[in-house]
Amino acid sequence: MDADFDPALDKPREECGVFGMYSPHALDLAWLTYLGIFALQHRGQEAAGMCVSDGDKFHVEKDLGLVTQVFDERRLERVRLPNARVSIGHVRYSTTGSNLRFNAQPLTTRTNKGILGLAHNGNFVNAREVRNQMLMEGALFATTNDSEVMLNLIARESHMDLVEATAGAMQQLKGGYACVLMSRTALIGFRDPNGVRPLVIGQRDDGAYVIASEPCALYTVGARLLRDVLPGELVWVDENGLHSLMVHPAAPTPCAFEWIYFARSDGELDGVDTYASRIRMGMQLAREHPVEADVVVPVPDSGIGAAIGYARESGLPFDYGLSKNPYAGRTFIAPTQEARDLKVRMKLSPTSAVRGKRVILVDDSIVRGTTSSLIVNLLRDAGATEVHFRVSSPPIKHPCFYGIDTAARKELVASTHSLEQIRQLIGADTLAFISERGLAEAVSGPGLCLACFNGEYPAGTPLLNDVDKLALEV
Amino acid sequence: MDADFDPALDKPREECGVFGMYSPHALDLAWLTYLGIFALQHRGQEAAGMCVSDGDKFHVEKDLGLVTQVFDERRLERVRLPNARVSIGHVRYSTTGSNLRFNAQPLTTRTNKGILGLAHNGNFVNAREVRNQMLMEGALFATTNDSEVMLNLIARESHMDLVEATAGAMQQLKGGYACVLMSRTALIGFRDPNGVRPLVIGQRDDGAYVIASEPCALYTVGARLLRDVLPGELVWVDENGLHSLMVHPAAPTPCAFEWIYFARSDGELDGVDTYASRIRMGMQLAREHPVEADVVVPVPDSGIGAAIGYARESGLPFDYGLSKNPYAGRTFIAPTQEARDLKVRMKLSPTSAVRGKRVILVDDSIVRGTTSSLIVNLLRDAGATEVHFRVSSPPIKHPCFYGIDTAARKELVASTHSLEQIRQLIGADTLAFISERGLAEAVSGPGLCLACFNGEYPAGTPLLNDVDKLALEV
Amino acid sequence: MDADFDPALDKPREECGVFGMYSPHALDLAWLTYLGIFALQHRGQEAAGMCVSDGDKFHVEKDLGLVTQVFDERRLERVRLPNARVSIGHVRYSTTGSNLRFNAQPLTTRTNKGILGLAHNGNFVNAREVRNQMLMEGALFATTNDSEVMLNLIARESHMDLVEATAGAMQQLKGGYACVLMSRTALIGFRDPNGVRPLVIGQRDDGAYVIASEPCALYTVGARLLRDVLPGELVWVDENGLHSLMVHPAAPTPCAFEWIYFARSDGELDGVDTYASRIRMGMQLAREHPVEADVVVPVPDSGIGAAIGYARESGLPFDYGLSKNPYAGRTFIAPTQEARDLKVRMKLSPTSAVRGKRVILVDDSIVRGTTSSLIVNLLRDAGATEVHFRVSSPPIKHPCFYGIDTAARKELVASTHSLEQIRQLIGADTLAFISERGLAEAVSGPGLCLACFNGEYPAGTPLLNDVDKLALEV
Amino acid sequence: MDADFDPALDKPREECGVFGMYSPHALDLAWLTYLGIFALQHRGQEAAGMCVSDGDKFHVEKDLGLVTQVFDERRLERVRLPNARVSIGHVRYSTTGSNLRFNAQPLTTRTNKGILGLAHNGNFVNAREVRNQMLMEGALFATTNDSEVMLNLIARESHMDLVEATAGAMQQLKGGYACVLMSRTALIGFRDPNGVRPLVIGQRDDGAYVIASEPCALYTVGARLLRDVLPGELVWVDENGLHSLMVHPAAPTPCAFEWIYFARSDGELDGVDTYASRIRMGMQLAREHPVEADVVVPVPDSGIGAAIGYARESGLPFDYGLSKNPYAGRTFIAPTQEARDLKVRMKLSPTSAVRGKRVILVDDSIVRGTTSSLIVNLLRDAGATEVHFRVSSPPIKHPCFYGIDTAARKELVASTHSLEQIRQLIGADTLAFISERGLAEAVSGPGLCLACFNGEYPAGTPLLNDVDKLALEV
Repeated sequence: MDADFDPALDKPREECGVFGMYSPHALDLAWLTYLGIFALQHRGQEAAGMCVSDGDKFHVEKDLGLVTQVFDERRLERVRLPNARVSIGHVRYSTTGSNLRFNAQPLTTRTNKGILGLAHNGNFVNAREVRNQMLMEGALFATTNDSEVMLNLIARESHMDLVEATAGAMQQLKGGYACVLMSRTALIGFRDPNGVRPLVIGQRDDGAYVIASEPCALYTVGARLLRDVLPGELVWVDENGLHSLMVHPAAPTPCAFEWIYFARSDGELDGVDTYASRIRMGMQLAREHPVEADVVVPVPDSGIGAAIGYARESGLPFDYGLSKNPYAGRTFIAPTQEARDLKVRMKLSPTSAVRGKRVILVDDSIVRGTTSSLIVNLLRDAGATEVHFRVSSPPIKHPCFYGIDTAARKELVASTHSLEQIRQLIGADTLAFISERGLAEAVSGPGLCLACFNGEYPAGTPLLNDVDKLALEV
Repeated sequence: MDADFDPALDKPREECGVFGMYSPHALDLAWLTYLGIFALQHRGQEAAGMCVSDGDKFHVEKDLGLVTQVFDERRLERVRLPNARVSIGHVRYSTTGSNLRFNAQPLTTRTNKGILGLAHNGNFVNAREVRNQMLMEGALFATTNDSEVMLNLIARESHMDLVEATAGAMQQLKGGYACVLMSRTALIGFRDPNGVRPLVIGQRDDGAYVIASEPCALYTVGARLLRDVLPGELVWVDENGLHSLMVHPAAPTPCAFEWIYFARSDGELDGVDTYASRIRMGMQLAREHPVEADVVVPVPDSGIGAAIGYARESGLPFDYGLSKNPYAGRTFIAPTQEARDLKVRMKLSPTSAVRGKRVILVDDSIVRGTTSSLIVNLLRDAGATEVHFRVSSPPIKHPCFYGIDTAARKELVASTHSLEQIRQLIGADTLAFISERGLAEAVSGPGLCLACFNGEYPAGTPLLNDVDKLALEV
Repeated sequence: MDADFDPALDKPREECGVFGMYSPHALDLAWLTYLGIFALQHRGQEAAGMCVSDGDKFHVEKDLGLVTQVFDERRLERVRLPNARVSIGHVRYSTTGSNLRFNAQPLTTRTNKGILGLAHNGNFVNAREVRNQMLMEGALFATTNDSEVMLNLIARESHMDLVEATAGAMQQLKGGYACVLMSRTALIGFRDPNGVRPLVIGQRDDGAYVIASEPCALYTVGARLLRDVLPGELVWVDENGLHSLMVHPAAPTPCAFEWIYFARSDGELDGVDTYASRIRMGMQLAREHPVEADVVVPVPDSGIGAAIGYARESGLPFDYGLSKNPYAGRTFIAPTQEARDLKVRMKLSPTSAVRGKRVILVDDSIVRGTTSSLIVNLLRDAGATEVHFRVSSPPIKHPCFYGIDTAARKELVASTHSLEQIRQLIGADTLAFISERGLAEAVSGPGLCLACFNGEYPAGTPLLNDVDKLALEV
Repeated sequence: MDADFDPALDKPREECGVFGMYSPHALDLAWLTYLGIFALQHRGQEAAGMCVSDGDKFHVEKDLGLVTQVFDERRLERVRLPNARVSIGHVRYSTTGSNLRFNAQPLTTRTNKGILGLAHNGNFVNAREVRNQMLMEGALFATTNDSEVMLNLIARESHMDLVEATAGAMQQLKGGYACVLMSRTALIGFRDPNGVRPLVIGQRDDGAYVIASEPCALYTVGARLLRDVLPGELVWVDENGLHSLMVHPAAPTPCAFEWIYFARSDGELDGVDTYASRIRMGMQLAREHPVEADVVVPVPDSGIGAAIGYARESGLPFDYGLSKNPYAGRTFIAPTQEARDLKVRMKLSPTSAVRGKRVILVDDSIVRGTTSSLIVNLLRDAGATEVHFRVSSPPIKHPCFYGIDTAARKELVASTHSLEQIRQLIGADTLAFISERGLAEAVSGPGLCLACFNGEYPAGTPLLNDVDKLALEV
């Protein structure tokens, strides 16, 4: 039920996934890192990369494309080291521009602390100010990648060791982020003070440690979940094992959308199981917004969990009213007016389960609303007599500055339209969103970052004119 | 809920999908045929092709790969004709060999009836005998493709027109097949006397006709379903509209597996809705083989329909106990012992829904049994206390000679093992298959070909030594 | 001094090269055939292919591209057979159209004589008539390739053996051609009655036989030249060695352009050394058309031999006045007015040798004249005070029907302009061509086909309206 | 007569070519830079790249491959700017390693002087010491590219303007180099104090300035040669035109190999015409080392100029005894013992001009001697009765530290063998090299760097242990 990303389906987009391993003995870390970032593919589809070191050699490969496109056998062979001990990997959703390839991660550099590789998920909201300051002091920036700012902060503290210097850099950079950093002999992981972006630690039976954005990446390499990296914590692994430093704790506010949609349904983050929380969101939605109907139908695959929960709480039958073409999402876009409609029709097709029925359609979110309207049409064309739209997240009204692409504010339908206007726009008979309180209860774990719903940014915001200035750069 | 094909999941494989259009006025048939064969992608993933004609020019493009790989914008442009009137398309699952590309379809040839293009699904069981006879008479065969035998039969009747000659060829070839054939000015579709392979006719509001393996291909090009081509029927479309000739009717025995697994769940074949029949199979399975348990879990995506039916009939909760990674199935195979296990783990991951639960696991079929055993293990590792395996098809014991690749007989686990042996092999607490009678009732429409279950071949079998001889050829 | 083909340099284009081997013992024929067709690359740059058989398996690979592009290591591996005994190969210059790939050679087919592979150089002028007749009799034609007509003629004689049937086919097809044909166990070579296209036989010390368009292909696989296949002769090699059948002898008239330009300068054809004949052409040109000047400069590489001859006879110094960029000829064409001029300037650049000099510029031929004019300009810009253009072939006024692409008649500058008009067009101070008689003396061997100069076609011409009809076909 | 690089031919390899343009008005600099680096392709075949700016946007594209492979139409489009004013380009011969792509040039970076792009030819012999010092001070190095050291030196002088800072960096880096550097609004070119590597300035009639490694790159973009950049000079072009700063003059010692082999024969460097100097080298060689013989034959294309000179001085006929296959040099290497021999035979084939003749074979240099031996064999096999080898450079005994790859010292045949030993090794009847004095007279212009012949390095040498340390790095 985890989504094969398709722009036509109009979802928020996670911008990255990170992965790292440290083994006290020789392991095929190229292959394991490949498996790890493959398991995180849903967090970034446009670039992939990894570094591997055996304590001496330090290899890196990265490029635009899916993990399986970037790493064919030949390319994986190039990062393979017989005595590999440390590795990191990354998947990325890239922004537009002419130099995407140079912005792929991990970023690698030579410093007075040896060669380092860094991969991050999220955003440093004050990266630009820090970068400008360092430029004035004679630093070079080869990329527009935030990671390079972090690396410069680490390198300039030439009198500190790597862990101290990294902790120092954490204190200077604000925002929501989760990073893995490696030298030839150590693996470091750290998470922003609010824990906006997730990061977990696992271990294999053979003693190797794994740090990754989600538990699924641990399981795929044969590791069990030890615990989450705590908000504001820095952990490192070297020949002496796992160590921790609490650099900068703050009130934990992990991103609610990890449970609503991003994170895979086969794991738990900050102690809360994602699949179970989605079932609870659906049940909560049924309690908050009941409606008389015949059948509960999910938008596959993102709405499945909430739809099962809705059906369970409401006592209505769950049915598969929309079938998904697993090959969709890879066609070129036809240069015609009906392109978007066509893309949706190529991806989703109604089954006989909706014919003559009053349908409750459950999805996880509405961003622009364009796709939702097409899906409602699809159901009506297939004979649904009523379509009641239920959404397992509150209306998205604000942009995210912590690593999620939700579209610009003016494109967010809930930022510019009332609930009734949205209902008319998408053509549903009724429309209802889960409440913020209901969502928080369904996740029922830590405090949550709900900034995209209510505009309260726990980890700060960038200076407003930054966006435009960046547009002038390479 | 339609499957993204993956060999690791050990399913029977449909060998082809066919598509054809005739328009009384200029239409962008290259684009529409692209959409049509894209909708049939689940019927064949290894080659794709199409022909387009405007009554004068006759373009063909075909190659190995998915539809979207073969037809990028540049290649589609090459078959585009501003005044296109007739087109056919094909998707194919290819067998191994060094010359696959030359066997891709549609097959095109120049004959005394002008240029012809032919695409077929299924097999002619006596193709080899007919081919050898024609070789002796001086014919050339550029490929090992059955279509070429059909085309030679048509061409040799130089005194007949195209429809007569095609009907004559149908009478000489036995087996299970569905074909589309085009000249510069006409589209022909025909189906074997038993109707083993499906073929449907549709029409757009603008008058254009469509003939395809499944209704989904009609819908995607904006056509509505008119009817199925009847077993033994030949239909053709030309400037005078749609015509029919009943060439060779016999007792209809369409392939049961179209409803069990192959056909997309958004259509009906021979009057029977595929999605509804899958729900009924699950309900029947629940009646035939009930068991005390906590939750009903499908193997995604192939077992979803039957699992919903099973849950509905049994009153047990339906839950998503296995999450599918939409990016799986495209990795290169690791050269290690645990490769198959790894592939399954990369594709499927258990959710918290099975933890501490007695699970009824529902799938559509078991071929070799290897994957089933891995999935059962996966659930036990995730904390399932019991796993009860339920299968919505009877045990597969016999090979198919009508266009389905089910693996060789000695590899079919049900051909060499008892039910109890299979249960032990896959490690389930209980194992049960739907009965042949129960399956027939669930489909509840026409007679069915059940040859792979009971060895009764309604459309004949090839001479036994053919398989070996073919191995010697290119 | 053999030319890297470049359309900008405006030369006639050879349409094919053929190669075949038969070995009495196992040899790596895939690799040797690769070397053989690589040596013939100058005869065709747009497609390459080969077949290899070990008496049982029969593999074929072919595609658009240079030999080294079509056959990377992986592809060559696919045709490799440990016990290979027979092989043929082909390089081709393709005509335009949408289905080029299907017309690549060798053409392979199954017949009553087993699987056959055929590759040809040249043209059958009555191929169309023969083809139409066979269509009426029920034959299929998958391609528009002349080879398929030959194969159909061979297959229809089901009572004859392969050699008899091939000899029979030779008697029915007219034109200028040289072919290699293989079954699983024999290699056949044959040449048209006039010997218009070349074909030579060689042998390795280990007993393996080679048949090829030019001697260079023999040398590259370690064979020595035995002799030319005679005009009208058919030779075959099987387990009993080399055999000959004189099918249809006529007055030999090999194509003069093989010596002027096509054939590589490191071999001899029909007993006449190509390099030496080019030197003699230059000497003859100097005798026929002397002029007072300072330096003799070739257009590289096609004019080098004749320029050396001219310098030697005239006593003037030979100098390298035009340097060739070896990377040219592979750029995409700029969408600007000066594109052609630019292509020439990217390929050729004047050296200091022409500054302040009266230059005799020697080239092998003038087709359209466009490039010649650009080269003359180039020399003048570089300071040449006079440019005297000397051409080692007579004016080309007629199209070739025997396998050479010389451009359509209306594009041939010598067909529509007087000598003086051409001189003005290209801007030379003087312009002179070798005489037909002078050319014949310089080659001084067999009779020659001079059809493109004088319009006398020794091997017949096609029916005129054929060209247009073919344009309607795929 | 300029060489298509082929490793089998065993020549020294130039490591780079640079190109830059500044236009006072909008020009299609992407296209012009493409033409410029295409003209310099012989200076580097393994990577190509360019930057283009319009004063605001700053685009860069670079990759492994030939210019025409890296820059297809789509890629060139990505660097195209309608109002482009400044651009630089680069071609490169890459060393081995896993991260070649990241070392491609131009190198771009953001600094306190804005975005900069730098491309260089040559080597800074003290780059490592400077780099280590800057690492200690907190600098990052993303590559192992010398350019990055130069850019860091420039960036750290945050109080200076770009020209001052670049001049300052020149004073700190030693070696032989020629560089182009661009900001959004200015183009800078500079050459090492000894002028070891070449750099020339040109101008178009429309006022645009060009700076490039060789004049051929000026001509191809329609510019005329103004003058050479002087040894130790820095020039820059901005909206106020061309400016000069003499930073660090020393005794000029340009690299002799530019005239012997590297530079294209259609230009002059430091006032000396390359083609004419090659003729003079051949004449000098004939005076120094006459021998009784029948014909003078060049190794194409590198020996052509000297062979013409030798023939002219000796009065012997010049003849084309070795024909070059223009398609060679792009095959994959056969995994057999005779691979090298085969490569030479695929590239070069003897013509009838050497049969029964006493041949003087002229080449520009001998590095390892392996190829020379194969060529001598080739001539003897073709019937040459004697082979006298003449070389237009002195014996190469020492490595180059200024940007030329001549192979390691132990591989240099002249470093480990006496003249007589080399003669026996290559199997020539006689062998002779031009003298150092003779070479200097033939070039007859500036002082020359003859370090690879006599071990006297005018611009210093690196610390010896550097080579090993670098091997440990990425």
